[in-house]
Parts: sequence; C-alpha cells; structure tokens
Amino acid sequence: MRNSNRQWILRKRPVGDIKPGDLELVESPIPVPGPGQFLARTVYLSLDPTNRIWMSDIEQYMPPVGLGDVMRGGTLSVVEQSNNPDFKPGDIVSGISGWQEYDVMSGGQKMPKGPAPLPAYMSVLGMTGATAYFGLLDIGKPQLGETVVVSAAAGAVGSIVGQIAKLKGCRVVGIAGSDEKCRHVVEDFGFDACINYKKENIRDALKRECPGGIDVDFENVGGEIFEAILENINMKARIVLCGMISGYNAEGQIRGPANFSMILMKRARIEGFIIIDYFPRLGEFFAEMGAWVAQGKVKYDTHIVKGMDNALSALNLLFTGGNTGKLLVQASEEP
Amino acid sequence: MRNSNRQWILRKRPVGDIKPGDLELVESPIPVPGPGQFLARTVYLSLDPTNRIWMSDIEQYMPPVGLGDVMRGGTLSVVEQSNNPDFKPGDIVSGISGWQEYDVMSGGQKMPKGPAPLPAYMSVLGMTGATAYFGLLDIGKPQLGETVVVSAAAGAVGSIVGQIAKLKGCRVVGIAGSDEKCRHVVEDFGFDACINYKKENIRDALKRECPGGIDVDFENVGGEIFEAILENINMKARIVLCGMISGYNAEGQIRGPANFSMILMKRARIEGFIIIDYFPRLGEFFAEMGAWVAQGKVKYDTHIVKGMDNALSALNLLFTGGNTGKLLVQASEEP
Repeated sequence: MRNSNRQWILRKRPVGDIKPGDLELVESPIPVPGPGQFLARTVYLSLDPTNRIWMSDIEQYMPPVGLGDVMRGGTLSVVEQSNNPDFKPGDIVSGISGWQEYDVMSGGQKMPKGPAPLPAYMSVLGMTGATAYFGLLDIGKPQLGETVVVSAAAGAVGSIVGQIAKLKGCRVVGIAGSDEKCRHVVEDFGFDACINYKKENIRDALKRECPGGIDVDFENVGGEIFEAILENINMKARIVLCGMISGYNAEGQIRGPANFSMILMKRARIEGFIIIDYFPRLGEFFAEMGAWVAQGKVKYDTHIVKGMDNALSALNLLFTGGNTGKLLVQASEEP
Repeated sequence: MRNSNRQWILRKRPVGDIKPGDLELVESPIPVPGPGQFLARTVYLSLDPTNRIWMSDIEQYMPPVGLGDVMRGGTLSVVEQSNNPDFKPGDIVSGISGWQEYDVMSGGQKMPKGPAPLPAYMSVLGMTGATAYFGLLDIGKPQLGETVVVSAAAGAVGSIVGQIAKLKGCRVVGIAGSDEKCRHVVEDFGFDACINYKKENIRDALKRECPGGIDVDFENVGGEIFEAILENINMKARIVLCGMISGYNAEGQIRGPANFSMILMKRARIEGFIIIDYFPRLGEFFAEMGAWVAQGKVKYDTHIVKGMDNALSALNLLFTGGNTGKLLVQASEEP
C-alpha cells in the first residue's frame, strides 16, 4: 500500500469536451481520522453522465463541484481504521467520497455482505437501478401493451429500464450505438427490438419498430434522438426526462427539441426526474428489485476500469459510447 | 339581408405571417337545408391563436384545414330555417361553422338564453374559460400560497387563469405587452403584479415579482418569455403548455426553449393540453365558473370586430397584441 492518496482535483470548468488540465491527478498523504471518524478506502467509484454536469456551472440540482475540490462521485468503500463504534474495519460503506483513493468519513450507508456481488450495489441495486425503477414506474407509468422506447439502451440505466418495462408487459424498443450493443440488448436483456442509430435513419426505424406509436420515452440522450422520438409519440405520451447526455459536453444550457410543439399537439407530459427525490422510497425499490435480481428476472452489466488514475479517461467512455452497462472504476481490491 | 354567403377560403398555407392571398373572401349563395338540417346564421365567430395552427400543415391536434375549404372556427349562430324538429328558428347554437355567414347544420349545442350575454358563451363560459379552468386546475394544480405566472395575461385565457389562481389563494404575476394592459390586469382582474415585457427586462422583472420563485406557469406564449420563466422556476414546478403564440407565425415546428435542461434540474413537469380532451368534464366547469361569473368573482373582456369581411385583419390582432380579452367577429346581429 502506497502511503499516498491519489485524488482528482477540478481545476477548470470544462468548455465542451473535457480537456487535459481541466482535472488534475494529485497525490496527498492518506488522511487521518479524527474522533468519531473512520478512514475509508475506495473500492469502487461510480462514473455517471451527470458527473459532467457537476463539473460545469450551469443551473443544476446540486451545487457544482468547487474549483480546487476533489471531483464528486458515488463510492463503495471499505473501512480501514475507525474511531466510530458504528463502523468497524472491514465494513462496506456506500457514500460520496469522490474521485480519490481514501476519504475520512463520519457516517455512511453500511451495505450487506453476501447476497449480491459488490458491483451490484453500484449498479442494479444502487442508484442506477433505482433511477430506472422510479423513473419508469413512477413517472412513465407504463401500461400493459404500451410501447416504451429507451435511448442509451445498452447503458446502465437503459438496460434496466427495458427489462422492467418487459416485466410490466410492454413492447420495448431500445436505441443504441452499435450492432453489438443492439444484439446484446435484444438477446440478453429481452428487448423486443433495438435500433442502431449510427447505421439507420432513426425516424424511419422508430416508425417501423413502433407501429402503434410511442407511449413512454425514457430519455437519457436528448438531441436528435429525442427529436426523432417526439415525432412518433402517441397522444398522452409520457417522457421521463432522466438525462440528456448528448448535450452535456455542449457549452451553456441544453436546448429543447426543435419539434417541441409536439408536446402541445399530443398533449404529452415531460417530467424531469432525479433519483435523490426518491431517497425516502428506496425501500420499495430494494424489495422489488432485490427479488427480481435474485430470481434472474433482471440482469445487469458492469464495465470495470481499474485504477483511480484512469477515472478521467474512463469517464470519457460514457460520451463516446465506449462502455456497455454500468461504468465503474475499481480503485482497490475488494476486501 | 343580402342573398349571399360570404366565406373565407384557405387558398395557401401561410409561410410566416399570413399574407394577402393565403385566404380569400368569396361570395356564394346561401345554402339550403336538406331533410333533418337547418340553416344557421353566424352571429359570433371566435378568433383564437390556434387558428393559425389549423392553417398550417405542421403536426397538430386536428386535421389542418384543407386547401379550398372554408376556414375553421368556433361559432355561435341563430337558427333561421329548420327541417329538424329539435332546432327551431331563433334557437342559439354553438358549433364550428367556420369563417362564413351561413352554414347548414344537422346538430349542435343549443345554448340557454338569458343568464349571460351571448358573447360570454364565446369567452368566459365557453372554450376560452374552460381552457383556463381545466388547464390551471387540472394540470397546473396550484396550491395555496404558490406563485403562478401567466403570459398573455390580458388575453382571453390568461385573464381568466389569473382570476382563478387568485381565487385559489396564489400570488399571481401576469406578463403583457403594454402598460395599459398591465394596469387593466392588476386593477380590474386583481393580479398581484404585471410585467410589461416590451419595457422591462423580463428576467429581472420576474425575479423581482416572484421573489419565492415560480411554481406554476400557464404558458400561452413560448419563445423568450418562456425561457425567462423557466430560468425562475422552483423545484417541482408545473408548466401548463396551453399555447406558444410567439411561434405560430414561424415556419415549421416550434423549437423548445434554449434552457430546456431546467426541466431536468428542477424536476419540473411540462404538460401539453388542449381543451377538447376535457369535453366529457365540461359540466364541472359550467357549474363552478357559472357561479363565479354570476357572483362577479370572475370578470371577462370581449373585443368585438364587426363584419365577417374583417375576420382576417382581426385575427392578426392576436399576433400583434392589438386586442385585449376575447376576440370575436360579430357577423350579424343578435336575435
């Protein structure tokens, strides 16, 4: 064990794509826990599209990460030393330690050992799965026989959204960026169809795969893909606005779709949604999703990149479509 | 009585502003009712922003008006001759006879005589009032003490929305295009404040007049005014998308706001809404609004232009802000 804590510091707010120098990897001494605190060693760091939002200073749902601060990120850590009787060495703790190898914490959510592999708590049984679950069911409200479209279908959230929609008796059409991802989405996750938007005219393909129109759109992407979906929505369609990754590297705010008037004409509903609002209801999610995962009804992928020093290059995979499933950095070995 | 029926025929789909030659005023013989039909003389024709949508062929909520057809419009007519035992000469009938002085009809909604002046049935007690009522209450769901913003506040719908919001205990801030309209909205309709968007920076003025942020936006205008509103919305804000008149004379579809990402960040809800979906519930509206009007709790304006030949120039008032309150063409005398 090196006696240093590697940390990614936000130095500049990226303009457009993240550039060298926007974040800097620094080494500092491993911190020492004070009274009531414990030292947590990061095992897994979650990389999510929203990380790019936190780097910017556009209006957002949490304060942006401060310049000079450690980059924010969800983590699963193991307790190494503790001055807190509630946390013992070896305990697994979920928190927001950020992009660093060690953190001093005063509390956190202890995770059970055993029922599922640790990466599951960072994906299907973590915020990713909860985002899919509440976004689709509570906002999208899919009904038996309806057609649900999921963009970024091979992604961490999208792949789970599609599987839940299938469990609810919907026709599910995914959109992804390669034939291999589409094959995976249909064969392994059970979507009814998947459109490779890099190969096909997305508007034509949506008309073909959604002959009855689109009732629910779980929107992860925004931009032209969202416009093509809007063109095909049914009356009273519901659009779960979970993310708009296509716009995150753009400068400034994210534009609405060019065919926004479809919302009026089709009396559709767009609703923005961020998982933190559902924290009081996580119990519902753990109960139902835990059972689905245990029964093999919901599957999940993890894409694990090793080493905290690779966090920044790994994050970029989200914007280039280089990952399939939940993207994690493994910063150290599981206990 | 001239023995001719003046009719406005849609000849070309307007590109941008409506131009001479897009619609043509023609004279044809007064039609003769067949078996089961009656001849209806138009008394009032409703002019509404949505008329401009019907002239275009963008994706919309009813079929566009066909080229060569009489322009569509809501009407209040008097029965002149009848071969239908349910409709007697002198009866007042609400329908969609369009931009013409006479129509042959087979049915329609008979209106009561007496309780309110006829123009009220084309405004506060008609589709205009119902749009304000269901849009605000059913979609906007304003709560006691919340702040409601209404664009086109001096307009037919906006002026009623604001009065209902006041009855529900909200702070109500209007946006209109002249000091005179703003004075009218505050002094006569009881809004708490009104912003003249032609004189003030709308973003700054909204911050001043909505110090607690905006909870409900009843959106009639779209464009830059909508963007300024979005910039000031609160968490879980509701945007009742009733219309986007600022975009109706633009070519093609209507763009979404430049700061669309606010919907995500504030977990807001945008919901499109068209009154025809509420036809099954009109009884609720008539009961409650009828009482409010009778008690003087809700006031209304009508702006009446005489002569069917003036329908097209009158319609333009909606786009230049030349009217205050419900815009009607009076095509013939009340019976």
